[in-house]
Amino acid sequence: MSLGSIFFSELIGTAILILLGVGVVANAVFPKNNGFGGGNLMINFGWGFGVMAGVYAAYKSGGQLNPAVTLGIWASGAKTFVPGVDVNAGSIAVYISAQLIGAFIGAVLCWLAYKKQFDDRGDAPSLIFSTGPQIKSTPWNLVTEILATFVLMFGALSFGAWNGGKGTILEALPVAFLVVGIGASLGGPTGYAINPARDLGPRIAHAILPIPNKDSSNWAYAWIPVVGPIIGGILGGLIFHWYHG
Amino acid sequence: MSLGSIFFSELIGTAILILLGVGVVANAVFPKNNGFGGGNLMINFGWGFGVMAGVYAAYKSGGQLNPAVTLGIWASGAKTFVPGVDVNAGSIAVYISAQLIGAFIGAVLCWLAYKKQFDDRGDAPSLIFSTGPQIKSTPWNLVTEILATFVLMFGALSFGAWNGGKGTILEALPVAFLVVGIGASLGGPTGYAINPARDLGPRIAHAILPIPNKDSSNWAYAWIPVVGPIIGGILGGLIFHWYHG
Amino acid sequence: MSLGSIFFSELIGTAILILLGVGVVANAVFPKNNGFGGGNLMINFGWGFGVMAGVYAAYKSGGQLNPAVTLGIWASGAKTFVPGVDVNAGSIAVYISAQLIGAFIGAVLCWLAYKKQFDDRGDAPSLIFSTGPQIKSTPWNLVTEILATFVLMFGALSFGAWNGGKGTILEALPVAFLVVGIGASLGGPTGYAINPARDLGPRIAHAILPIPNKDSSNWAYAWIPVVGPIIGGILGGLIFHWYHG
Amino acid sequence: MSLGSIFFSELIGTAILILLGVGVVANAVFPKNNGFGGGNLMINFGWGFGVMAGVYAAYKSGGQLNPAVTLGIWASGAKTFVPGVDVNAGSIAVYISAQLIGAFIGAVLCWLAYKKQFDDRGDAPSLIFSTGPQIKSTPWNLVTEILATFVLMFGALSFGAWNGGKGTILEALPVAFLVVGIGASLGGPTGYAINPARDLGPRIAHAILPIPNKDSSNWAYAWIPVVGPIIGGILGGLIFHWYHG
Repeated sequence: MSLGSIFFSELIGTAILILLGVGVVANAVFPKNNGFGGGNLMINFGWGFGVMAGVYAAYKSGGQLNPAVTLGIWASGAKTFVPGVDVNAGSIAVYISAQLIGAFIGAVLCWLAYKKQFDDRGDAPSLIFSTGPQIKSTPWNLVTEILATFVLMFGALSFGAWNGGKGTILEALPVAFLVVGIGASLGGPTGYAINPARDLGPRIAHAILPIPNKDSSNWAYAWIPVVGPIIGGILGGLIFHWYHG
Repeated sequence: MSLGSIFFSELIGTAILILLGVGVVANAVFPKNNGFGGGNLMINFGWGFGVMAGVYAAYKSGGQLNPAVTLGIWASGAKTFVPGVDVNAGSIAVYISAQLIGAFIGAVLCWLAYKKQFDDRGDAPSLIFSTGPQIKSTPWNLVTEILATFVLMFGALSFGAWNGGKGTILEALPVAFLVVGIGASLGGPTGYAINPARDLGPRIAHAILPIPNKDSSNWAYAWIPVVGPIIGGILGGLIFHWYHG
Repeated sequence: MSLGSIFFSELIGTAILILLGVGVVANAVFPKNNGFGGGNLMINFGWGFGVMAGVYAAYKSGGQLNPAVTLGIWASGAKTFVPGVDVNAGSIAVYISAQLIGAFIGAVLCWLAYKKQFDDRGDAPSLIFSTGPQIKSTPWNLVTEILATFVLMFGALSFGAWNGGKGTILEALPVAFLVVGIGASLGGPTGYAINPARDLGPRIAHAILPIPNKDSSNWAYAWIPVVGPIIGGILGGLIFHWYHG
Repeated sequence: MSLGSIFFSELIGTAILILLGVGVVANAVFPKNNGFGGGNLMINFGWGFGVMAGVYAAYKSGGQLNPAVTLGIWASGAKTFVPGVDVNAGSIAVYISAQLIGAFIGAVLCWLAYKKQFDDRGDAPSLIFSTGPQIKSTPWNLVTEILATFVLMFGALSFGAWNGGKGTILEALPVAFLVVGIGASLGGPTGYAINPARDLGPRIAHAILPIPNKDSSNWAYAWIPVVGPIIGGILGGLIFHWYHG
């Protein structure tokens, strides 16, 4: 597997994830939509099945789609991401850059899919693209993101280990349902970024896209859904490594 | 596998898909129903599990049920649809005609299942049968349908590739959840036809059925949920072919 | 496998199905409940996962739980229900009697689980136990039940055929999701009995149980959710037999 | 497998279960949350996918996470919990103590994840942490918990038996959906503890945590969600043993 294939695999997988994930928020928030007011569970399932579709689409690279997951796999002591692709600084850079670019592209595609809804509303709340806290608190928002991403990372690694595997291959269906569960259970306070690319890519898209009357992209908060998930993912990988042996 | 078997397989699978899919809309829209006001997520699950049931039922033909999927598989460079059935103009015509006829039959069956509800309401909104835009815009409605069908096609092909297969066999459960996700995430602006047969067959049924006080079948819009999904499906097949190699 | 094992297997499976299925209705309808007003999708999932639990529990007998399914398997030309149990009048009688008794027991257990809610409300609507039409119409209520049960039967047989099997073993997870889908999509007009035991067993329980201020058990309607599903199941089995070959 | 590995496996699995399970209640109940008012089905799915994540995470110990399940497996006559770990008083004590401590830890982690929401509200209802009856009645609350846990135990054992196994290994996905179903169908009267650790661990956390204006931890009720589930689990194990042979 070449790093070029890895790059495109992560890019298209993350783009599909973000297209569906940001899309379900747009569907629920913009009034001229079939899903307007569809509720939190619809949003959770939209993100969950977006992860499922993205993980399957990225079958060549193992469907990581998330820098916190990539770093968590590194922290878990894995030697390869997929057969023939060693875990090292170069491959990690390929994974993460593809995830960020894919997330940006996915957010742009979502803007295109909901173009008339954006036009109709006449503004573009950054919360459709990226996450924000219900109650602002740097330490506690970090704690929420760390805990939620720890559950994602430890869970995803355990899916691979369940049947005697090495714990590095994500299983798309359980991961989808886990993301639904994390959204329902831990998404309340901060909107469950649990993925630096999921938050940063769309935030950059919100800042760049030519949308009139945009609100602030809230850059002051932007580092929390990057740092929190990375800490949670690495913690998950380390503890899983110690546990799995 | 004879083309006659293919024809019946696609016909009954698509009929079941449409019976359940149009049915969940009727259940949510007509007031004298247990599902009245059941919400967008119920509609998404109704369509998703309708796809699941139809794909399983059409096990002889690979459960395509969708001209955009059939053309996307062709575009992906597959040599056969199922063992013994080559991909060529003749087999494609059999698939697509069976899908269209099956979709029409499914819509008629749904009208029979909800006959008293149609009578009680005294009219028959075409939006129960076929899709329409929340905000009319030829280019942007096309974009939404293209993007949503691209995700369906690329996703469905990747399900088959995930475990080392050739990517032409649809997996019924992930496809079902993907359709739930596409509905929740990209179904807002246009009602996610993502399938020319799903839209055209029931639209013809709406035009033909002897229902009093029908509204317009909205033929001016009818080409968009045909052309958009076909473009999206072919794009998905082409890009998957380039990606999968 | 002895017929005694078959009997207990079907009995406990159907009892679990009805305990969960009637239970979710009670949860949604009685006000002093955590699930009060939980909505139609919650009811659909309650029935679907009730079917899943019952099918798994009845693993010895193939998890039929439904006279319409038993007769549909007979109509599909199957020679055995499970290895060692021939399809004949005797075994069919064992299946169906166990299903009816199990459904009755499940309804009684549900009444015990919700005993204080029944006492608090001071009556017992028969619609918690058994089904009824939103708009009464003998022919059209029959049509709805026939169509919904046909989908159940054809779908369930195709799950077994999908992977090259003989189409007689029900797969618990797809059957569960199919029941969710049938409830969402075709449950509007009549409440989707799709199972004579599901309707008749709890209706008898409603008639017998010592509940004050019961409403009518609506025996005038009771034959429709028996006859309709049997027709639909046999039709499903016959057409599947012709299709599957 | 050492008993130390069993201990950590059950501890982290139960902690993840409770973090997600108590979390979804907090998300639905506290107003400054994305999931506020998310409804009963969201809560059911949160618990179900919490169980899924916990069962997978505890893959080393078989993912029991529940003293009623541990005792039910003992009652079913199993000789080992997992290969190399005999069923005896010592191993049962390891399982149950790990489950209780894990549940306590999970509740504390959930409090940290929702720290600002607890602060904002200014109190901490014990019903976020542990269960309580909608209508208080010692015998009938016990009956509800016994029936619901019987279904959990019998169902979980049958998942393992379905494919010819011995019925001692829990399957994570069906168990998740079964917990969703039990919540939807039998969670109305008592909040479906169905697990002594799920109720007792968080109740102790509620009593100990330094939260201002706590309401009562309702210790008078606390024995019911311990005794009821244990009776239901043992009954399930005994009857399954007789049935499975």
